[in-house]
Order: sequence, then C-alpha cells, then structure tokens
Amino acid sequence: MRNEVETVAVVGAGLVGQGWAIVFARAGKDVVVFDARDNAEAVIRPQIERAVADLAEGGLCRDAEAILSRIRFAVDLEEAVSGCDYVQESAFERIDVKREVSHAIDAFLPAHAFVGSSTSGFPGSAFYEGCENRQRMMVVHPVNPPHLVPLVEIVPTSWTAPDQAVRARQLMEEVGQSAVSLSREIPGFVLNRLQGALLDEAFALYAEGYATAEDIDRTVRDGLGLRWAFMGPFETIDLNAPNGLADYAERLGPMYSGFAEQRKADRDWSAEAIAGAHAERREVLPADKIDARRSWRDEMLMRIVKAKQ
Amino acid sequence: MRNEVETVAVVGAGLVGQGWAIVFARAGKDVVVFDARDNAEAVIRPQIERAVADLAEGGLCRDAEAILSRIRFAVDLEEAVSGCDYVQESAFERIDVKREVSHAIDAFLPAHAFVGSSTSGFPGSAFYEGCENRQRMMVVHPVNPPHLVPLVEIVPTSWTAPDQAVRARQLMEEVGQSAVSLSREIPGFVLNRLQGALLDEAFALYAEGYATAEDIDRTVRDGLGLRWAFMGPFETIDLNAPNGLADYAERLGPMYSGFAEQRKADRDWSAEAIAGAHAERREVLPADKIDARRSWRDEMLMRIVKAKQ
Repeated sequence: MRNEVETVAVVGAGLVGQGWAIVFARAGKDVVVFDARDNAEAVIRPQIERAVADLAEGGLCRDAEAILSRIRFAVDLEEAVSGCDYVQESAFERIDVKREVSHAIDAFLPAHAFVGSSTSGFPGSAFYEGCENRQRMMVVHPVNPPHLVPLVEIVPTSWTAPDQAVRARQLMEEVGQSAVSLSREIPGFVLNRLQGALLDEAFALYAEGYATAEDIDRTVRDGLGLRWAFMGPFETIDLNAPNGLADYAERLGPMYSGFAEQRKADRDWSAEAIAGAHAERREVLPADKIDARRSWRDEMLMRIVKAKQ
Repeated sequence: MRNEVETVAVVGAGLVGQGWAIVFARAGKDVVVFDARDNAEAVIRPQIERAVADLAEGGLCRDAEAILSRIRFAVDLEEAVSGCDYVQESAFERIDVKREVSHAIDAFLPAHAFVGSSTSGFPGSAFYEGCENRQRMMVVHPVNPPHLVPLVEIVPTSWTAPDQAVRARQLMEEVGQSAVSLSREIPGFVLNRLQGALLDEAFALYAEGYATAEDIDRTVRDGLGLRWAFMGPFETIDLNAPNGLADYAERLGPMYSGFAEQRKADRDWSAEAIAGAHAERREVLPADKIDARRSWRDEMLMRIVKAKQ
C-alpha cells in the first residue's frame, strides 16, 4: 500500500467539489477534476478562482496562482480516476447517482487508491454494495464549504478495511482538515445528529412560545456558540466545574436529565412551528437578501477561522 | 417610573458579580458592590482589576482607570441598595440564600428601582415569593463571565410586571449585553436547555462507541460551532436551503425526526459514559492544567468576540 497521496481526483464539482479541489490544491496536491456537465471547466474554473481570491483576500491562503495551477480538468471519469491516489466523490446527492458514480469509479480505480464520498445523507453501504474495491471505499463527509470549515467525518462501511479509514484520516490531517473517525455507520453521522438535537429543542421552545426565533438564535450566537467555536461540549463542561467533567455531571446532571424527561414525547418539528419560524426569518431577512447574507456568512467564517489560528 | 439607570447595586461579588460590576462600569454606570465576605473590598477589588486589565490588553475596553473608578464598595446591603436604580443579585446559588438575600433587598429597594437575579438554576418564583416589590423582580441570567459573553436571559415570574421585563431588556442592551426575553419560566431557561439537548446526544453517541469524546468535541469546535459563533440554529438552516428555513425543514425534517425517534428511550447520561468521557478528558488535559486551560478559554473568547465585532 502506497501511503503518499500526490494526485487527487475530485469527481463532481458543484460547490462541495469545488471546495475540495481548493483544499487539496492548497495543500500542494495535484487535483484532477471531473464533472459531467457540458463545458464543465468553463463554468467551474471561474467559480474556483473567485473562491480562492476570497480566501487570499481574507488572509487564509498565500499564492493563489500556485493553488489554481495545480487544478486541472479531465475530459472523462477514466482520465480523472485512473491516474489518482485518492478519489473525493461529490456527485449529486441522490442514491441512484451515488451508486452509478461509485461503480464507475470502481472500474477505473488504481490498485493502491482509495475513495471517500462527500454524501451527508446516505450511509456508504447504501451505494458501495457490489463494488470490487469496497474495502477501500468509505464516506468522507465535509461541511460546506470545505475550504472554510475544516471538519470532516470519516465513516467506514462494514466492508471498509480499518487501515483505509486510518489512511483517510491521515490524508485529511495532512491537507489541514479536522478529521473525526466514526467506528461505524449511523444515520446523520455525528455532526447532523448534534445539530438535530439542538434544533429539536429550539423548535420545541419556539413552538411553546417561550421565546422568539430571533432570541433563540441570539442565545446561541452570543452565548453557547462563542465557546463552541473553539471548544466542544465536553471540554466546555470539563472547564465549568472545579473538578472537571464528572464533577459537572454530578452537580448538573439531574437538572439536564429533567429537561430530557419533559421532552421525550415531543421532539417533532411541527408544521406550525416551521411556518412561524420561517415567517419570522423572512421579516428579519427578506428573501431577496438571502444571497448577500450568505456572502456575509462566509466572510464571518473566515474571521472566526482566523481568530482561532 | 424613572427609566434611566445611573447607579447599579451589585449584590454578591463572586466571579459572576465581579463580571457584572465590570459590565455596568464599562458602560458608564456607577456601581456599588456589596459582598457579605469579610474584607470584601481587599479580596475582590484586585480580582476586578486583573479582569479589566485583561480586557484592555485584549483590546476589548478603553480607559481601564475610569472603569475601575466607577466601582465602589458598600459596607452593608442597605447602603448598596437604598441609593440604586437597579440591583443585580449574584449571591451564592442556594435556594435559602437566594430567598434571604431577595427579602433583604426587598426591604431597602427604592420605589422606582428593579431587581434581576443571576441565578442559573432556580425560577424567580422560588425565591421572590412574599417580596413586597415582586412585580419589579425577575431573573436576569448571564453567562459566565458576563463581561466576555454578552448573552443575558430575562425571565419574568408570574408576578413580574411586563414593563419591568422590558426595562431590564433595555438596560441590558444599553450596557452592551445581548438580551433574550422569555415569556415565562421554564427550567433551564433557553440556554441550558439548548446546551442540554446537545449534551444528551453527545453522551449517547459516546456511550454507544460511535466516536471518542475528543472527536465529538472536534465536530463542534471545527464544524458546527464555527457557524454558531455568529449565527443561531435557525439562521444557519435558513441560509442552508435555496428557499430558506421552510425549504430546509421540508428537505431535511424527515431525516432529523428520524434521529429523535431513535433516541426517545435513551437520553440519560449513563454513569459509565460520564466516567469514560471524564477519563478521556483527563488524558487530554491533566487535572493540574485545568486552570491554565481556563485562562486560554477566556483569551479565545476575547478573540472570537473581537472577530465578531
């Protein structure tokens, strides 16, 4: 098994694939992009150029030219995959598409290479079944956009060889991402399960009229989230009691399990709560301002990423 | 009703009360501190001075001298309360202490003044009962330390006059805090309920061996928390689907309610999970390094707060 990854194939270059191309090229890898769209390079390269320019302007990368020069486009999947050491697949998020692309990658995959899928919604076992090389295939799930948010979840299927999952973690760390290794598949992986738990409580509090959606958001962005941007939930409570996590759990565990008890029967997002929160959001942010706010978000992400460095 | 608050009584000056003194003095208020400890001023003033010096060094306040000059100490509770416009009570977090202090404040409270308690664990109705002025009393719950983390939860009791809760919000906004108004009491208020929901899922994932405590922390600090430091959960999903929050809920609601379904029977923090996560934390951070890490936390908080400005 060759451990060095010099060339990465990025298969599927929507926003996620474009971010991946930047991640690998920024770390000095040669990147070969394949996207099935017509005129793929003409459409996609300018978008990558803009994202790299934003990074450079935000002080988050040097030598934008060199990064861009390491990204080239392949005319077909075979060209992209057959010469690579690693494939990051970011095809359209539909199970039949994932299956088809995975099998096509499988057919051209060099004997030493391995594959990660960017899927957020499907377990790898739902689309790698039947692949010859499935012991070298897994989910490598990024957060959007991967060149700004470093987190990556590595989720093996039951076929994935453990050393291949380790190899994926090493690669991710080498290119500057922050890797999380799951022991096995679970719907939503870790990130979306944590996000879902918070959203469940947020919708329940909103539905019962305890606070506005704006005030619930404020509680996170001016309170909890300030810590969570640099410490996880365990480290947060570990530092919040004189003798660490176990001490915190002893002091406050009864209070927290009381909340859970109260909620057990009521964790759905009601149609009414969704409609109400959506309407409140549109008052705060009219529909025609959403795009501008997304740019602001990416700028803020860069500032927080820089503040953490 | 006088709306201007010129003088604030800070009753109880542990870490939370000290932070409050800084918040009010930084905003130009006259602050009168009362703490029941012997030699209160000799013990507490140097701690406040150090915290203000850290703020100045971090670029988060100007004119440290002026701030400190606005903080004076009262010899007794009567002196602190009888000349003030607002009382921020941060006495020891025990229900009998809260009751006793609240009744003492009640006895000296000027007719125009109002009161907020820093309690995180008790509803105001558990300790304001029987107070003459309970229509001007409520919970005004900060996050620790309040001079770094701006969030404040304003929680009225059933006796609190609505205009007094509005007044508290205005005061908090005036002094630069970020106020959240609850419509009525609920255990844990908003912040700790949201934190608890995330912790429940984190402990469950850890207990079932899906990932290490460190990797679960990483998922938040390098993924979810980067966004939550400047956008709440509703704004996050509102920007994550082409047509906003309702569109997101339609696309991903079924996935999220699936997670909740799976968890309903299992939201406790097991003794085993607590012991395991604690042991893992102590490997990452030995007990004798906890204090240094708390200083690092406050420094990081300052950087994130600055990055958000």
